[in-house]
Amino acid sequence: MAQHLDNQLLAQILETARPLIGKGKVASYIPALAEVSGNKLGIAITTVKGERFQAGDASERFSIQSISKVLSLVLAMTRYDEDEIWSRVGKDPSGQPFNSLVQLELEQGKPRNPFINAGALVVCDMLQTRLSSPRQRMLEVVRLLSGVPSLTYDERVARSEFEHSARNAAIAWLMKSFGNFHNDVTTVLHNYFHYCALKMSCVELADTFMFLACQGCTPAWPYPVLTPQQTRQVNALMATSGMYQSSGEFAWRVGIPGKSGVGGGIIAVVPHEMSIAVWSPELDDFGNSLAGAAVLENLIAALGRSVY
Amino acid sequence: MAQHLDNQLLAQILETARPLIGKGKVASYIPALAEVSGNKLGIAITTVKGERFQAGDASERFSIQSISKVLSLVLAMTRYDEDEIWSRVGKDPSGQPFNSLVQLELEQGKPRNPFINAGALVVCDMLQTRLSSPRQRMLEVVRLLSGVPSLTYDERVARSEFEHSARNAAIAWLMKSFGNFHNDVTTVLHNYFHYCALKMSCVELADTFMFLACQGCTPAWPYPVLTPQQTRQVNALMATSGMYQSSGEFAWRVGIPGKSGVGGGIIAVVPHEMSIAVWSPELDDFGNSLAGAAVLENLIAALGRSVY
Amino acid sequence: MAQHLDNQLLAQILETARPLIGKGKVASYIPALAEVSGNKLGIAITTVKGERFQAGDASERFSIQSISKVLSLVLAMTRYDEDEIWSRVGKDPSGQPFNSLVQLELEQGKPRNPFINAGALVVCDMLQTRLSSPRQRMLEVVRLLSGVPSLTYDERVARSEFEHSARNAAIAWLMKSFGNFHNDVTTVLHNYFHYCALKMSCVELADTFMFLACQGCTPAWPYPVLTPQQTRQVNALMATSGMYQSSGEFAWRVGIPGKSGVGGGIIAVVPHEMSIAVWSPELDDFGNSLAGAAVLENLIAALGRSVY
Amino acid sequence: MAQHLDNQLLAQILETARPLIGKGKVASYIPALAEVSGNKLGIAITTVKGERFQAGDASERFSIQSISKVLSLVLAMTRYDEDEIWSRVGKDPSGQPFNSLVQLELEQGKPRNPFINAGALVVCDMLQTRLSSPRQRMLEVVRLLSGVPSLTYDERVARSEFEHSARNAAIAWLMKSFGNFHNDVTTVLHNYFHYCALKMSCVELADTFMFLACQGCTPAWPYPVLTPQQTRQVNALMATSGMYQSSGEFAWRVGIPGKSGVGGGIIAVVPHEMSIAVWSPELDDFGNSLAGAAVLENLIAALGRSVY
Repeated sequence: MAQHLDNQLLAQILETARPLIGKGKVASYIPALAEVSGNKLGIAITTVKGERFQAGDASERFSIQSISKVLSLVLAMTRYDEDEIWSRVGKDPSGQPFNSLVQLELEQGKPRNPFINAGALVVCDMLQTRLSSPRQRMLEVVRLLSGVPSLTYDERVARSEFEHSARNAAIAWLMKSFGNFHNDVTTVLHNYFHYCALKMSCVELADTFMFLACQGCTPAWPYPVLTPQQTRQVNALMATSGMYQSSGEFAWRVGIPGKSGVGGGIIAVVPHEMSIAVWSPELDDFGNSLAGAAVLENLIAALGRSVY
Repeated sequence: MAQHLDNQLLAQILETARPLIGKGKVASYIPALAEVSGNKLGIAITTVKGERFQAGDASERFSIQSISKVLSLVLAMTRYDEDEIWSRVGKDPSGQPFNSLVQLELEQGKPRNPFINAGALVVCDMLQTRLSSPRQRMLEVVRLLSGVPSLTYDERVARSEFEHSARNAAIAWLMKSFGNFHNDVTTVLHNYFHYCALKMSCVELADTFMFLACQGCTPAWPYPVLTPQQTRQVNALMATSGMYQSSGEFAWRVGIPGKSGVGGGIIAVVPHEMSIAVWSPELDDFGNSLAGAAVLENLIAALGRSVY
Repeated sequence: MAQHLDNQLLAQILETARPLIGKGKVASYIPALAEVSGNKLGIAITTVKGERFQAGDASERFSIQSISKVLSLVLAMTRYDEDEIWSRVGKDPSGQPFNSLVQLELEQGKPRNPFINAGALVVCDMLQTRLSSPRQRMLEVVRLLSGVPSLTYDERVARSEFEHSARNAAIAWLMKSFGNFHNDVTTVLHNYFHYCALKMSCVELADTFMFLACQGCTPAWPYPVLTPQQTRQVNALMATSGMYQSSGEFAWRVGIPGKSGVGGGIIAVVPHEMSIAVWSPELDDFGNSLAGAAVLENLIAALGRSVY
Repeated sequence: MAQHLDNQLLAQILETARPLIGKGKVASYIPALAEVSGNKLGIAITTVKGERFQAGDASERFSIQSISKVLSLVLAMTRYDEDEIWSRVGKDPSGQPFNSLVQLELEQGKPRNPFINAGALVVCDMLQTRLSSPRQRMLEVVRLLSGVPSLTYDERVARSEFEHSARNAAIAWLMKSFGNFHNDVTTVLHNYFHYCALKMSCVELADTFMFLACQGCTPAWPYPVLTPQQTRQVNALMATSGMYQSSGEFAWRVGIPGKSGVGGGIIAVVPHEMSIAVWSPELDDFGNSLAGAAVLENLIAALGRSVY
């Protein structure tokens, strides 16, 4: 009953979601994001067998924003023992907006999970401690994983984010007041915003995150990025906390792990099979790509690939 | 690499978790639960092929408590249109204790999901509206699904729960104040506590919930309990909100949908393959069976059956 | 510089506030309150020397609503030791809406003060424990204090309140779940709503509350209602928590202790000098009489009687 | 019945409160405060007639800490129109700990009142905007008001506070994210901590704050510090929000406006009569001087000077 995966199917599915364009809102908190056209719609898939499929604006780069939170977590997992990480950040859904300080204050500066801003900032703080050049190292990682040496930060976005960083600064300082932030706030914010400002296309994202579909391995690297267990763990975290406050709704509708960014991108994983990247800049009320989520819902239904 | 599933494997896995007994706490808010021995440990599995496996105290009945929240939701899904249900209760993790009123007040009486108390009470309120005898109907359902006509409520537990029902009464009245509770509070609480007081064994639970592993079908019924899509949806909801505030931790450690009860039971599902019921009365800080979660973690690791 | 207090001054001050009529909202949560004309405006003063002044609709009775919270507290203070009361309810401003459950849950069922709903319900629960007929007793008290034997409850308002009592029932049940509510919820709610449904005029209110201006004494009673210290304490509580969430604003603008009700009444006290009752049914965003507060502001400025 | 005010009365009252020493805790969040002896106990009074009374350690200087929040507010009131101030900070009790961010986030960056940290930081932000040298200006003000040209900041305390400023930085950044903080965070924090680090004795404090007892006038200045109305307003604000979360309790027990600091000082005002400064470094659970509050309670009872 499941349909055959090819470029034509992807193109068809993009069309079923296209009517949603105009019903969401492009992120506008910084000019560099606000000026992106809301009409963009793209998808790319990389399978564990090395096949690649794509449709629409799959080759156009955009700001990956919070999708980078998965990359920074993965990088931390390669540099820190499990206990070191999870004593400083939790693994559970927050039930709160991604930039809220309420829970953080009540829970003494320990963020609920690494995919809300507070959690990602703690992870970046860890990277600052252990890496000599966290920004350069991240570039190396994404260039290797994607196989695209030209990948780089959009400095204009990074700078613009930094100029609007008050809320994230508040989060970092609050964690510092609880002893859960060790490095200079400004330095870590700069790294954090650079990670958010990574510019990648759907094709590049699908290639980069393929290791999450492949038990941690990827042809791009000589050794596993993560162990199979770690890979399942990251996928589990995306499944429960990857879509901000509507992670439950996303699991209900789509049924696979995913992580979104306010640039309109979503990376999703069918374990053991494929990584999927979609892009449509207009967001729903929770900050997830409106058409992007619909594309994933229709695709996974067509392929019969919900993990549940 | 995955191990072969048989009774011996289950017995071994129980032994690996048995040292945890003594490190949790049996639920003590009502006497009928407090007097259960903390030493109990059991597991039962029913596969979609009809195989049955078990070990330990798998045939001893216990109070299923919040596991019944899945049953009441399923029952509501057979009687209500999708919109009718989900306009009154959400699908997202709450990030709050299961009996909290804070979020409920801030969000105008709409509970985050059907697996926290508020959500389950709304579901019971719906059942009261549409069913002539909600308690009798639930008995018929579990008797049919389990194939065990002797299943019944533990009236002593139900009565005892009702005598300690102040918190749930507060939740129901708060929802009523927002127009999201339509029937008599006392009547619905009685039904709710009876559902919680269903007495079932691991074997009976595994049989009962097998339909969630089987796309909604079960040999026990002449027609599907749920559609395949509905089945995936319920599983998704368990995956993101089934283990109270530590649903993310459970996904991280175990990697399959599950729903726990303060009686120490957990029902879990490997989609397309099997339903699993474990029981160990001592609970962790979040109200989930301590040894039970460890049994599931070890079992799923041994079988290689994480969905992520 | 202070102006001379007489009926003419009161009439003038009513006129300065009258333009505010039309800018607030008459309480509409029950029909019996909603149908009161928003045009009413009245004031009455009783001095410790026995003088009486009045202007406007000072003799028309209205529902005193939360003004009764002062009376129930005073009644409890005559029947309970200090420790018995203040171990169950606090003395500090809540900073929250009057009917919120959030703080109550976080603070384990102990209300911040006796002038929010939760606190008044605890006080009514105490009265139910110690008085054989709390409703009858309250009537006796207000009839004695006011010298008006015809004072009574508006049964239609009391019944209507009870029919919309879900929120207060939730509050009572939540306190019961924490062990801070001892009697039958319905019984206490009935008393509470009857107290709220007391129907009194400004003249009757000013006479009734004169003892708060007079160190606890009143010619109406053969012995002091409260000791001088208790009187100061009740006034202090009104000064810090008497006007819901805008008690600070009221102190800033007016500068004397006061307690408002959603019926549009406010009772206020110039210690050692006079009690003042105002009435104007339209409320501001916090539930206080809009024109009533302005009348008090202008009056106290004219008389030079701020306590600060 | 009221006792006569003289140095002997003050000495007696100190002795009645001295047994409380040892039951509180000296503030320990910075070393410079932690090393102050808990045994200190002093009181000073300045009357509007120019009389001065004192007892105990009334001439020893200590860190005035949050008492400075009154001074910065008064300074702002001389430089800003009423609307400019109160559109950025409220006048109501917060019901929350003094350094909480929860309410600030929910209320979009507008602090409840100028006596919690957030509110005082907004006030300091205003002063930074309008004054060429806010730190120098504050010194001039306190030197003039106290008549003591040697008053100065304890630079060691200011520096130490700044080194532990993470929580206040978080508060400032959160307000900045809502547009309610205009200047450089570090600059304003430096000013704020210097104000807190003002070192003054009870005698100097009583003289400094005498204008609040005297309708805004003081012989120290050629013109009124505040208008009579502004003076009442500041006193009202102290009465409702001056003692952190136990402002209601303080009003209940003592009955006059007061403002405390974690250095153990409290400044209090009997309107039209006198200003009172007490000092005892050990604090209660809410951060107010334990013995200091008892001294005020006993003094005001002895003098019969509650405003309520």
